[in-house]
Amino acid sequence: MMRAAVLRDRQFVVEELSRPVPGPGEVLVKVLACGICGSDLHFVRHAHDMVEQARKLGAPTEELERGLRTGLVLGHEFVGEIVEMGPDTARGFLPGDRVCSVPFVLRGAAPVLIGSNPETSGAYAEYMLLTEALLVKVNSGVPDAAAALTEPLGIAIHAVNKANLQATDVAVVLGCGPIGLAITAVLKSRGVRHIVATDLSPRRLELAMTMGATEVVDGRDQPGAVAKAAGHADGAGVVIFENTGAPGMLAKLVLEAPAKSRLVLSGIAPGEESFHQMVAIIKELQFSFIIYYTPEEFASALEMLAANVFDWHALVTGVVGLDGVNEAFKALEDPEVHAKILIDPQQRSGLRTLR
Amino acid sequence: MMRAAVLRDRQFVVEELSRPVPGPGEVLVKVLACGICGSDLHFVRHAHDMVEQARKLGAPTEELERGLRTGLVLGHEFVGEIVEMGPDTARGFLPGDRVCSVPFVLRGAAPVLIGSNPETSGAYAEYMLLTEALLVKVNSGVPDAAAALTEPLGIAIHAVNKANLQATDVAVVLGCGPIGLAITAVLKSRGVRHIVATDLSPRRLELAMTMGATEVVDGRDQPGAVAKAAGHADGAGVVIFENTGAPGMLAKLVLEAPAKSRLVLSGIAPGEESFHQMVAIIKELQFSFIIYYTPEEFASALEMLAANVFDWHALVTGVVGLDGVNEAFKALEDPEVHAKILIDPQQRSGLRTLR
Repeated sequence: MMRAAVLRDRQFVVEELSRPVPGPGEVLVKVLACGICGSDLHFVRHAHDMVEQARKLGAPTEELERGLRTGLVLGHEFVGEIVEMGPDTARGFLPGDRVCSVPFVLRGAAPVLIGSNPETSGAYAEYMLLTEALLVKVNSGVPDAAAALTEPLGIAIHAVNKANLQATDVAVVLGCGPIGLAITAVLKSRGVRHIVATDLSPRRLELAMTMGATEVVDGRDQPGAVAKAAGHADGAGVVIFENTGAPGMLAKLVLEAPAKSRLVLSGIAPGEESFHQMVAIIKELQFSFIIYYTPEEFASALEMLAANVFDWHALVTGVVGLDGVNEAFKALEDPEVHAKILIDPQQRSGLRTLR
Repeated sequence: MMRAAVLRDRQFVVEELSRPVPGPGEVLVKVLACGICGSDLHFVRHAHDMVEQARKLGAPTEELERGLRTGLVLGHEFVGEIVEMGPDTARGFLPGDRVCSVPFVLRGAAPVLIGSNPETSGAYAEYMLLTEALLVKVNSGVPDAAAALTEPLGIAIHAVNKANLQATDVAVVLGCGPIGLAITAVLKSRGVRHIVATDLSPRRLELAMTMGATEVVDGRDQPGAVAKAAGHADGAGVVIFENTGAPGMLAKLVLEAPAKSRLVLSGIAPGEESFHQMVAIIKELQFSFIIYYTPEEFASALEMLAANVFDWHALVTGVVGLDGVNEAFKALEDPEVHAKILIDPQQRSGLRTLR
């Protein structure tokens, strides 16, 4: 058996579940740490609207509805230790190895998102299954807390790669949650000279400075971050990373962005967004919507954490056991205290705030 | 003096205007041919709404309003013959040379769009001014009608370049007006193996086949062009060129497009467009909005026409003198007859349909 935080009707309930048994090509890992992702918060809040919306769009909803009925174990930003190898494995990994993985298991040849249904349980649990072929080994010098940041940092690397960034480009980071902060760190590591970060929270802006922002702007101020970045551009390109998902933000950016701006959008606006297409055309804007990363980008995120390129400690603001997941979700509503909270499923403690 | 078709309150009126005098760095050209652009049609129909919308968005409208009050000479797809050199010119061009130019004149160091105000008159006239530094020479083997297609072909080359196209990519061309048809020809010249073109007009679909489409789909049919292209993709990328500007098209494409599709949007939807941002994010779509080209792309369009890479004759469906411009605008409302009509300002004839 194992303990897991099961999502039931917008609340997590700690339950004893059977410990899963690895199938061919799979390994069982003991979860050492798992980050709480903004998309988990979004999911808990909006899962029922998502079903509704997907149904309207004609997308399949059975899987999701079954998950919500049966209970789901979320958690896709994890590091674990291999405790058992399934059949047809051990092509390079051994029990005791610490590993990360992109949040998919291969069922047949098809990747299935971890945490998206009751059969592919996530890392809000003491144990989970992973596909050996997707594992990345975590070297001994890398703390669990750093390895658990691989996934969000992978998204940040992907975002910056999608922007096709030049070192002369000026960057705007809108929304300094963990993704925005990680993007800031990646931009800094790429030598971008002007990184203007903006958020409504003073604490988040402080963290943005720690990650390498060269200028921070309160989201309520005028002129805003885009205008300030444009002032530095001097003929160079402006790249805008939109991580807030705030309704109406895209329309605002289309009006504010200088001509030829590239927008990289990771923020999930819950409904329909509208904008003036003629303005986007006259300015020749580019929108790149992103959600994942390539396996190479995921691996390079772990390398970046191992190399201590930036102060990743600053991102990890809390640790909590499985019994404190509801408390942690509540705490994450206040950006003044927390950025990333890690779940340690082997602990029984409540939320511990670091620093 | 010279004759010009002046736009006054949605109608063109042929008037005698003073022949312009070239300033420093400028040349006077006799206009040999000028294409009627879709954006000219859009402008005549929507200029007053555009003022209204620009005012709402806080953009400057004085210039446009003055133009509409005083009368405008449109025309930005032209070829001309140099008849007079202004002061500080002749750094490589001579009277008698045939030339094209990107549709701007430099006033001070700033580029001003030709046809956008009464001082920078366009090519719906016997004569016009151009900036020598922006001229491209037309070789003697290239007919006027081909050279007049340089501008729209430049947009098509730009569209394809913005898509960052691979030869294995599958392409969809939505809307087979002159831009869609030129994009089709460029895709063909780049070796794209699947080019699925769609339009509501059978005649336009015929022209798309002539330009190199490998498959054509009536815009009313199900499954549509995007689904058909996706069927050919087999893991390759899908690039969708949206040239219709039809309201609601973007929302439809976001739902229909396979994951990772790149959308290149040249069609000017007149109002606000909305779409499901979450769907765009889950699919990692990319939107590139385009309107112009680089000077290099413009020059390479003329080279492509000179090399007879595709049957450009098929695009030119009519020729008209200045007195027939209203008739030509009316005729362009029916896609079954005309694609591109060229104005020959030196003629007095009405609309002549070719082929």
